[in-house]
Amino acid sequence: MEFVDWSDEGPAVVLLDQRALPHTTSWLTLRTVDEVVDAIRSLAVRGAPSLGIAGAYGAALACALGTPEAAERVATARPTAVPLSLGVRRVLARADDGPAAALTEARFVAAEAAVVNARSTERAADLVQELRPGPVRTLTVCNTGDLACGPGGSALGAILRLHDRGALTEVLACETRPLLQGARLTVWELARAGAPHRLCVDSAGPAAIASGLVDAVLVGADRIAANGDTANKIGTYSLACAAARSGVPFLVVAPEETIDPHTPTGADIVVEERGADEVRGTTTLADTPVYNPAFDVTPFDLITAVVTEKQAWR
Amino acid sequence: MEFVDWSDEGPAVVLLDQRALPHTTSWLTLRTVDEVVDAIRSLAVRGAPSLGIAGAYGAALACALGTPEAAERVATARPTAVPLSLGVRRVLARADDGPAAALTEARFVAAEAAVVNARSTERAADLVQELRPGPVRTLTVCNTGDLACGPGGSALGAILRLHDRGALTEVLACETRPLLQGARLTVWELARAGAPHRLCVDSAGPAAIASGLVDAVLVGADRIAANGDTANKIGTYSLACAAARSGVPFLVVAPEETIDPHTPTGADIVVEERGADEVRGTTTLADTPVYNPAFDVTPFDLITAVVTEKQAWR
Repeated sequence: MEFVDWSDEGPAVVLLDQRALPHTTSWLTLRTVDEVVDAIRSLAVRGAPSLGIAGAYGAALACALGTPEAAERVATARPTAVPLSLGVRRVLARADDGPAAALTEARFVAAEAAVVNARSTERAADLVQELRPGPVRTLTVCNTGDLACGPGGSALGAILRLHDRGALTEVLACETRPLLQGARLTVWELARAGAPHRLCVDSAGPAAIASGLVDAVLVGADRIAANGDTANKIGTYSLACAAARSGVPFLVVAPEETIDPHTPTGADIVVEERGADEVRGTTTLADTPVYNPAFDVTPFDLITAVVTEKQAWR
Repeated sequence: MEFVDWSDEGPAVVLLDQRALPHTTSWLTLRTVDEVVDAIRSLAVRGAPSLGIAGAYGAALACALGTPEAAERVATARPTAVPLSLGVRRVLARADDGPAAALTEARFVAAEAAVVNARSTERAADLVQELRPGPVRTLTVCNTGDLACGPGGSALGAILRLHDRGALTEVLACETRPLLQGARLTVWELARAGAPHRLCVDSAGPAAIASGLVDAVLVGADRIAANGDTANKIGTYSLACAAARSGVPFLVVAPEETIDPHTPTGADIVVEERGADEVRGTTTLADTPVYNPAFDVTPFDLITAVVTEKQAWR
């Protein structure tokens, strides 16, 4: 499903407002570069691959409006999302050939993401079935479906492929504190696909694995070091520890570009700490100090395979 | 601190309303057996050892009001809390000797809990200092202080002993989804004691351990099997897995009576599943199926020691 797209009544970018999910399905039509920047900054669209597509269409919009230089603000709307600036730059490189060429390049960016996702999810689903023949109970964390990755998704996409093949018994979806992408977005995508699922608190994931309720764990990745150590949403490491102890396959599914040859090992990955209020909410004392790492690093020896569009790296 | 006590202006039970924490410190004066039952049922007082004390004083109140038989409703206000009914029965056994004797027995129940806590927390603090000389950074989950256990606490009590000894650098307190006892109660007790601490989401606990931010993990216990396998709040297992992998001491601190000789192993412990709305809140789709185990089982081989008032079982 295309949750970020070009409007037939353009020039405009249309996208599903992820902030309103799961309760409201609301599409935004963005007719100015400022509106695209706002949508990215306010997390109406999130997920690195989806940001790449949004950046590409945002740059195409800037070209269509005769202000290609304005696309620079799209590229920097969220500084740490590498695909965002890559998408913008690819489109801008065609700006001199006119708005139609820029839009064609943006459509290429989106189409290529879909091809990458199709290949990696197919390979991951094949590997799960090879390792665990018969219907499987899977577990995942955060949101790695079409919303985050563009058509086809990554880890959640592989799970939905198993569902399409009739090989999926259940998905346990970790809620993913503090921002609850699992409870808000993954559950919405699973319900939409008619895939059997249950939601659980994050700390119940390792317990479910130890209790024999899980045949395979599938997660995405924010960055993969050259040695295979993988940074992903906080909580991923706890699932990998439990999976290794119970002998449950643990697959990372991500585009090949997530592998960063300039980061030798997980120890070289700087873990972003986010704001305290994300964790505090209204529950605890207002001035409580908080430790809020956005992701953690799972060593490669706990990972059964890193699956991309090009390889199953084991 | 006595958070459950007998009123000097009795006959009445006074207790701190845990439902109002951390934002409001509100003491309830309970002058009828019905009020005691309501306070227990609605979780104004919680934590198995604290329920034992509340049950004992509730029975003393029933005796003081000339209706000892009414204490039976206190004993069954929460059917799974074993200390609650034990506390009631001990006091009722003295009912024939009059209200003063009953009250004396209730005071014994409370005093004994304080002695048990003092011994187990002293032993646990000693063991931490033996295993990790010098100031330590600790991590805990759920709430195991005076609120839950009576004066002295258990795991959190041991951590506060280290603080009293000048041997505590920091406490990482896991928020403890879904009911957030860590964010609501443990943070309140730590702030009250002036102990340095940070709050984190539950899935950040294992990552913190792997990152070298934790010198010792201390947790309580709901039930300990005869072989040492320990049932405790959901998330405990994930911390134990991470601690074992990183070689970080993992201590269970609990009264000796938590060890159940009639439960041979962790596999014999039935894990209670609680209601779906605890997890759903208002975040996810209203009809989302939920997996909500209240606790998990940590195998004894992941536990450095089970520390009680009688022993450090290693």
